[in-house]
Order: sequence, then C-alpha cells, then structure tokens
Amino acid sequence: MIERIAILGTGLLGTSVGLALRAAGFRGSIAGWNRSPEGAQAALSMGAIDSVATSAIEAARECQVVVLCVPIYATLDYMEQLSSVLSPEHLVTDVGSTKAQIHAAADRLFNSPERAAFLPGHPMAGKERGGAELGDASLFRGAVWLFTDDPSWKRSPYCAALVSDWREWVVAMGSRTIDLDSTRHDELVAWVSHLPQFVSTGLSALLEEEVGDAPELKDVGGRGLREMTRLGASPFSMWRDIAYTNTEAVQSALLALEQRLAHIRENLRTPELRDEFEKANRFRRGQ
Amino acid sequence: MIERIAILGTGLLGTSVGLALRAAGFRGSIAGWNRSPEGAQAALSMGAIDSVATSAIEAARECQVVVLCVPIYATLDYMEQLSSVLSPEHLVTDVGSTKAQIHAAADRLFNSPERAAFLPGHPMAGKERGGAELGDASLFRGAVWLFTDDPSWKRSPYCAALVSDWREWVVAMGSRTIDLDSTRHDELVAWVSHLPQFVSTGLSALLEEEVGDAPELKDVGGRGLREMTRLGASPFSMWRDIAYTNTEAVQSALLALEQRLAHIRENLRTPELRDEFEKANRFRRGQ
Repeated sequence: MIERIAILGTGLLGTSVGLALRAAGFRGSIAGWNRSPEGAQAALSMGAIDSVATSAIEAARECQVVVLCVPIYATLDYMEQLSSVLSPEHLVTDVGSTKAQIHAAADRLFNSPERAAFLPGHPMAGKERGGAELGDASLFRGAVWLFTDDPSWKRSPYCAALVSDWREWVVAMGSRTIDLDSTRHDELVAWVSHLPQFVSTGLSALLEEEVGDAPELKDVGGRGLREMTRLGASPFSMWRDIAYTNTEAVQSALLALEQRLAHIRENLRTPELRDEFEKANRFRRGQ
Repeated sequence: MIERIAILGTGLLGTSVGLALRAAGFRGSIAGWNRSPEGAQAALSMGAIDSVATSAIEAARECQVVVLCVPIYATLDYMEQLSSVLSPEHLVTDVGSTKAQIHAAADRLFNSPERAAFLPGHPMAGKERGGAELGDASLFRGAVWLFTDDPSWKRSPYCAALVSDWREWVVAMGSRTIDLDSTRHDELVAWVSHLPQFVSTGLSALLEEEVGDAPELKDVGGRGLREMTRLGASPFSMWRDIAYTNTEAVQSALLALEQRLAHIRENLRTPELRDEFEKANRFRRGQ
C-alpha cells in the first residue's frame, strides 16, 4: 500500500535505503532531498531516488512515508519541522543510532490523534565511511533492523497499515527486525556497537602515536590489527551525535572495559588470565 | 642448498610451513615430529611433511635446518636439548611470538664456533584457532616474517649460506622479511599484535557477561562487533607463553590503552573527541 516515499538525507544510508527498496521490488515513487545538492544528484544518478525534491518539507507532505536518514540532531530538527505540517495519514521513520531522545520527541510531537505517526528505527548496518557514492542495495542484507516504541496500537487502521507495510519492506530489504524499548536499545547498542567503535578509535589513535612514524611496521600486525582498527577510519561527524545522545551508557561501557583491561594487565601471569580467555571463547561460540 | 628440513611441532604453523615450502617448490625432504602422533599423521596425510620422525632429536640431527614450531617455553626446552647434540653445520630457527628470551638462550646455547647456528624468526601470520587440519600453504602470503639477531656474520660460510637460503625460502613462501633486534621486536609486537589480542579477549569476555544471556542480541552488533571480537576465539594455550615472556611490554601497552579509553570517556562531549577520531583516521590512512 505504500506508493510514495520521501528520503530526507541521501548519504550512505539514505541512498542504500532507496537502492534496497528498488532491489526488493518497490515500484512507487521515491523523492529524495539532501542538504548538499551533489549528494542528491549522486543518489538520483544511481537510481536510489527518482526525483530530487526542491524542499524537504514539500517532499514529506507529498508522500506517505518519510524516511529520515540524517544524523541524530538533524533528525530531531526535522521532527520539529514536520510535526506541524504533516497529517495523521503520514508515517515518519528514521535510522538514528540512539533512540531515547528521538522517542521522547516522538511522544511530544507525533503519535497523538491529530498528528502524524512516528516509528523509531535503527538498521544495524553501515560502513566506516559515508556518502551517497558508497550506497549499496545489499547494505541491509543479513542485518538486524531495530524498532523501538512502535506506535501502531494507537494509530488509525490506515496508518497502522503503513507501519506494518514499512516493516515488511524492511524485511524485503534483507533485514531481520527486533523490537525493544528505547531505553534498552540505547543500553544495548552502547555495548555491542558504540563500545567497539570507541575502542577501535582509541586503539588506532594510540598506535598512531606509538608506531605512526614507522609505517612499514604497521604491516607487522597483519589481519588482526587491520580488523581491530578498521572502525578507526570512521569520521567524527558520524559519531559526534551518538556520543552526545548516549553519553551515560557509553561511559559505563568504557569504564567497564577499562577495568577489564586493568584486570588482564594485573593477571598476565596468574590463572585469572585463563578465565578471561575462556569467557571470551564462550562469547564467540555463542555468536 | 637446503635439502633436509625437520619441522618440530606440526600444529597450524608447522604444517603451514611444510605446505608453503612445497607450494614454493622445495623438493628436499621434510621430516616432522609432533608431541601428539595424530598431529604428525595429519601433517603427513596433507603432504606437509614426508616422514614422521621417531624422535625429535634424531630428526634434528639428520637434517640441515630445524624449524621449531612449538610454543615459546617448548622452544626454549628444545634449544637446551638440541644445543649439545647439533654441530656447527646445523641451522635452527623458530616461529615464536616473543624473542627476548629466545635471543638470550640462543646467545648462551648456540652461535659460538663449536655450536649450531640459531636464527630467531617470527612470521606475523596465524589463525584464531590452531591444529594441523587448519594448515594452509598460503598462510604466509603477504605477511611480514620478522628476524631478530641474525647470526650470519659470526658463522662459517656454509652455515651463513644456510641462513641466507632459509631467508630466501621465507620470501618464496610469500612473506616480506624485516630485521630488528629482539628488544625492539618485543616492544613492537606488544603494540601491534599482543595489545589487539588482549583487547579483543577483554571486550569479548565483558560482552559475554553483559549480553551473553541474550544470544539474539549479539547479532545486533553486525560486522564491527564480529571483527572486534574475532580474536576473542583465540585459545589461552596460544597466549599463555606470550603473556609470560613479554609481560612488561604488554602491561605498558594495556595501561596506555586504559588511559586512552578513560580520556575518551571523559571527553565524549568535548572537542577532544574530535582530535581522537582524527588521530585514529590518520593511523588508518597510513596503513
């Protein structure tokens, strides 16, 4: 039943959503808008969108489903702008990496009888670099797409059907959906997504200081080092809003890892080290 | 000129050395010995060795080059045993991950005029699991093979030629050789190899405690989490000797990373975070 989609923000994720929708057989219209016209043109030339909107608000008004694919604070800005111009027949969803503030804004600005619906979403997929050119129809294949605070139960049948249809397109794009509430979401991603990123950034920055002046020696680390520092290539611009909007959960996770590394450091020659390896082995076996 | 090689220890590395030598065109004999007969039989059936020796010492005596492919303390044990039974016409080399203690033993037990030569070696290649069955002729392709404290200069021409020929076989197996002294070696690998391992182990063990009871949520982390925890599958048996023989350098590296993570934790909302990301980005660009 979804026939008109607007993608606001045609970077890596927005462009990939458009390409994945087309690959999954979506035949309706996909309008795109991007802060830089070059990004919108790139998405258009790749076939991720079929028109470049002249205004984000106009594009949103004219479609049924708005997909916000911008950083978190930009998402919050759009939510403010859109809530007063959209009607209860509209569904807005997003791809932001933290959900507590977005959920709070959705409660305040959407999901009441006279307002549009808002479904917070978070595909666990990405690359360590952004940009429309890296857009990829298979980006969401095999990934988990999290939803928090699904508003369907309080919506009109028409709008609940939009939510249900969007969830089906997400599955058609190759993702598995999991629902959880926004508080649990933010705690969980602090452990399994944000912590690995900040560790890789810290490790890469440390090694830049320690061995950065001997480039030939970086090869010495081999595959293990390459993997452990790959996320170190992630740009600050992709992580600033996450650090700001999930600060406490990330702080707890970092502190726990600092203590863990200190424990290993103090036990390099005791049987405790065996316990650490065995616990780590169990985590990998469970994956 | 090398025609007879003995590989003592036919686990992942020993078996891979045999397979890689054959793939590189080595036509001489390769005798193998392994503590568990099953491991030696597996290496034999894979073609990594062409005979199973009845005794490690006999195999060493009858060849020109002995390659020790066992953990570090076992390497030190073999060095004690071999030094009194081998002659100046023999070359012994190893693949151990730390080199200071092995270098000290080589100085004490080898490399004098009446003793065999010892060339400490360390291929920067491996897998997160061991065993002959995982042996791989291409394991060393594209890897760096470190040598420390090359004794050629104090050897007879015959033995210096053995050293030179072994180094050529290492290149033929697909590796790039780098020479450095054993102290610098142990410091360097603490940063680029041991630190990434212990971080991955610590991160995996922490996550086992935090999200191990919710296996479906482990998928949420996606590729980044899988990469950051892959080394968490490494068995303690492969790392115990490393932790014991490079304790101080690993402690320094771990402490430095703990401080780095604390710095990130305290600066999630300050411009310092941008500096960390930019430094990390520089490390990756340099790779």
